[in-house]
Amino acid sequence: MILQVQSHKRIQLIDITRDVQNLVREAGPISTGLCHLFVRHTTAGIMINESADPDVCEDLIEWLNRIAPHHGGYRHREGNSDAHIKSAVVGVSTSIPVENNRLLLGTWQGIFFCEFDGPRTRNVQITVYPTPKSVDLKS
Amino acid sequence: MILQVQSHKRIQLIDITRDVQNLVREAGPISTGLCHLFVRHTTAGIMINESADPDVCEDLIEWLNRIAPHHGGYRHREGNSDAHIKSAVVGVSTSIPVENNRLLLGTWQGIFFCEFDGPRTRNVQITVYPTPKSVDLKS
Amino acid sequence: MILQVQSHKRIQLIDITRDVQNLVREAGPISTGLCHLFVRHTTAGIMINESADPDVCEDLIEWLNRIAPHHGGYRHREGNSDAHIKSAVVGVSTSIPVENNRLLLGTWQGIFFCEFDGPRTRNVQITVYPTPKSVDLKS
Repeated sequence: MILQVQSHKRIQLIDITRDVQNLVREAGPISTGLCHLFVRHTTAGIMINESADPDVCEDLIEWLNRIAPHHGGYRHREGNSDAHIKSAVVGVSTSIPVENNRLLLGTWQGIFFCEFDGPRTRNVQITVYPTPKSVDLKS
Repeated sequence: MILQVQSHKRIQLIDITRDVQNLVREAGPISTGLCHLFVRHTTAGIMINESADPDVCEDLIEWLNRIAPHHGGYRHREGNSDAHIKSAVVGVSTSIPVENNRLLLGTWQGIFFCEFDGPRTRNVQITVYPTPKSVDLKS
Repeated sequence: MILQVQSHKRIQLIDITRDVQNLVREAGPISTGLCHLFVRHTTAGIMINESADPDVCEDLIEWLNRIAPHHGGYRHREGNSDAHIKSAVVGVSTSIPVENNRLLLGTWQGIFFCEFDGPRTRNVQITVYPTPKSVDLKS
């Protein structure tokens, strides 16, 4: 399944928890399993962090800009090397446990699409893997 | 399966390799598969790194404190923005290959629960996924 | 499956996309699934980032050396603490969606083995997990 995300700034953390949860709910009956998220871009990423207070995202963005500033004497001529670096720090892939078609996230956890070179239209590849336990016991 | 971890300092890397290995051993017969670890907290993380020399963990903690100091002029009023940042750097989720109910870790690798805002009682969600290969061949 | 990688410098990002794709192609018929990569070393890592312009890798290496320099007053006596830190930043494990035995990578994405304490001969553990969907529907 593909989740399309529209970013509106150059750097932006977009809460996609509800969208991912909806896709997992409709994925067919899953007692236990894993939800895998994969960003098919090199200047974006995926992160699980606090979704309650938006200040946390602001602090994260400010920190990322401090350790990897937009203009930092990079070689890559497209002017977005900082975005590639930020992507390397947060990563482009994560997995979340699923139980009875619900994401097993903690109380304060949200899933954030991380835009580092927007605004752009982006895609997140989402795959749900049911645990093949019952099968293994039979064999 | 839930592994409970008790931290004793604000920032602490706790070696949970043996506990995870014990859970994988008791998970039913698994010839090949994957052990997925997921931290359901936003001020903690999970990391695989050297477990032989405790100085490596000390160096890692010191480095994390240098790039994301506890008090760094953050907006988030709870005073633990650095913990959210450190969590974003190391990540809250990882997967380890499993063979014959053993974690396929390298000689020097250990699994570390990373506490960034302790002391607290924490939970790590652990799921073991057997490879559904034999099944696929039948269908 | 084990992919052997030979590094030639102390710090080097080695594009292993083609090798991983070849292993996935030969892994038996997989309509949908997941390719899991795991580095069994503590001074190396795995990263997905831009493979088109080699300057991006140069910028990434330079940045990693800036935030975690080789000689930085570390405690660990082997003189490679920076390599353990760099490994913690990029991570030792990732997963890529697979469709019809092809890695679902984005246009600009490549898979990089990250050597941080070479030159050495290294191993990447690769496992392909077919999605057990058809099975779950039967039960």
